[in-house]
Amino acid sequence: MTRVRALQWDGGALELFDQRQLPNRVAWVRCVTPAEVAEAIAGLVVRGAPAIGVAAAYGLVLAARMDPTPGGLRNGADQLRQARPTAVNLSWAVDFVLQRALRASPATRERAALEAAERIHRQDAAACRQLARHGADIVGERGPCEVLTHCNTGALATAGIGTALGIVRVLADRGKLRRVWACEARPVLQGARLTAWEGVHDDLPMTLITDSAAGGVLRDREISAVVLGADRIAADGGVANKVGTYPLAVLARHHGVQFYVAAPTSTVDLETARCHDIPIEERDGDEVRSLAGATIAPAEIAVFNPAFDVTPPELVTAIITERGVARPPYAASLADLVVGEDV
Amino acid sequence: MTRVRALQWDGGALELFDQRQLPNRVAWVRCVTPAEVAEAIAGLVVRGAPAIGVAAAYGLVLAARMDPTPGGLRNGADQLRQARPTAVNLSWAVDFVLQRALRASPATRERAALEAAERIHRQDAAACRQLARHGADIVGERGPCEVLTHCNTGALATAGIGTALGIVRVLADRGKLRRVWACEARPVLQGARLTAWEGVHDDLPMTLITDSAAGGVLRDREISAVVLGADRIAADGGVANKVGTYPLAVLARHHGVQFYVAAPTSTVDLETARCHDIPIEERDGDEVRSLAGATIAPAEIAVFNPAFDVTPPELVTAIITERGVARPPYAASLADLVVGEDV
Repeated sequence: MTRVRALQWDGGALELFDQRQLPNRVAWVRCVTPAEVAEAIAGLVVRGAPAIGVAAAYGLVLAARMDPTPGGLRNGADQLRQARPTAVNLSWAVDFVLQRALRASPATRERAALEAAERIHRQDAAACRQLARHGADIVGERGPCEVLTHCNTGALATAGIGTALGIVRVLADRGKLRRVWACEARPVLQGARLTAWEGVHDDLPMTLITDSAAGGVLRDREISAVVLGADRIAADGGVANKVGTYPLAVLARHHGVQFYVAAPTSTVDLETARCHDIPIEERDGDEVRSLAGATIAPAEIAVFNPAFDVTPPELVTAIITERGVARPPYAASLADLVVGEDV
Repeated sequence: MTRVRALQWDGGALELFDQRQLPNRVAWVRCVTPAEVAEAIAGLVVRGAPAIGVAAAYGLVLAARMDPTPGGLRNGADQLRQARPTAVNLSWAVDFVLQRALRASPATRERAALEAAERIHRQDAAACRQLARHGADIVGERGPCEVLTHCNTGALATAGIGTALGIVRVLADRGKLRRVWACEARPVLQGARLTAWEGVHDDLPMTLITDSAAGGVLRDREISAVVLGADRIAADGGVANKVGTYPLAVLARHHGVQFYVAAPTSTVDLETARCHDIPIEERDGDEVRSLAGATIAPAEIAVFNPAFDVTPPELVTAIITERGVARPPYAASLADLVVGEDV
């Protein structure tokens, strides 16, 4: 069985697994300019905060090849940063590669950028493994369990086995997973299209539900934990993640279910003090009005389509990272994990 | 502007507005046998608890025409009752028409059945108007407001202006509606396809959202109330309604938002003592795996697809009926409204 992967560098171009085509087709998109990478990120060819970061890092390698001057690099970096506003991994990865490239001499800038991008790539894969083990230790500590997850946080969202879905994979490997309930994640259906695809690919005991069915599942089934990812975590421990995360947090609290956020420390943004200051991307209303080419609502209806929502720290049981687990109060515990960070 | 209607009796057949075709096509399905009506109900040509009841009532008229013997009527009644299990209006309407028809002489059974069905039809339209006025009095009492609704409870779900959406219509008529937020209601998208279509048709200030976006809307906007319908209300005041209702009730409570259930008294089932005893229909997983002919999840993924969920009475602020408003404790207040009922 081939391992699922979101992207690969082929020496001359960035190949992105085209996630828009799942579950119907396996296809790849080849990018040779930073503009193509930025367009692919904005168009959801690649998504998932860690995968976006790695893709953007390689995008800057392509910028360095086209124009290795500081101006050329900064133009490429600006294009990539503006592709999507919420995930902090994107600007974090771009800044990391940019700094390494600018420190190098003009003739070695492309190579320096590539080394930096590959380092981020390897580091993300390693972070997934470490994070998944930490998470499985906590979630599975009382024996085989059922968990509920949202959106896609798997191999398609990262450069490794995934964050929250990485925890699910390790639970399954350890014989600790009775069932994972996967929410479909309207409007773009990353749960139905991507997580379910990874679940079938890896033969996980997975059941797909609509987002609205999660409330009844949390009440009526023995769910040990909600485990999901993050697009940005503020210094206060509040979390921006796929729309639908906040209602799951309220429902988990209402039913006494643990609510775990799994993300690499690169997702933590200590510069943003309060989670409610995280910018939330609003996407086009047609994502809600139509689906897979079919019209499902009148063209004239107004639509509010936020891609993410914000879950305040008081609803988060713990934040699971590759460096360990942060628990409330997060101002102290997150800073302890993140400070001194170096890729 | 023609008025939206879910069904009409043309003297010889039951014409059903084909709700499966919205928002793309306006089409009607003509039924001349009780089996065709039962099939249309099971297949969601017509849906919404009150509309199903009226449709089934006319279905029994068709049964009386085909075979006016007691056995023939009872066969037709059984077919119709089994079309869908959760809405109590269906069996209520079938039983009402059946009793009236059986009391008549064989030669007048078809006419007796038709009179009974037309009475239910008229009564439902009147109940919508009365219920909507009661609801608008409560919801709009502090001036213009924003409300949030779920699924479709409008003219397409009833034989009149609707239940919860009827309240919204009366609020708009009175200049008391700033905005109505409509959840799309996956998997069958009655909110996106039907409620949004009614909203555009009637020029209501309506915004469509995914079900997952409701949590953020309830937190971040000034929503006065969640107003939605019911498929069955137990004697304890607990409510079976479209899946997604229960999480909205938990979210409303979390944010101090009023949670109103609007339904005619025919939806109240005093025979079912506790709401958790209401049978919940599970529908085919392909409703989740595909949409409008498009595959959105792998064929091999397991799916749990409950059509409804159960909201316990402690999360319901009040139940609004055509006879008035029931408040906790519901065991007493609902019985007061329902007892002595006669169509």
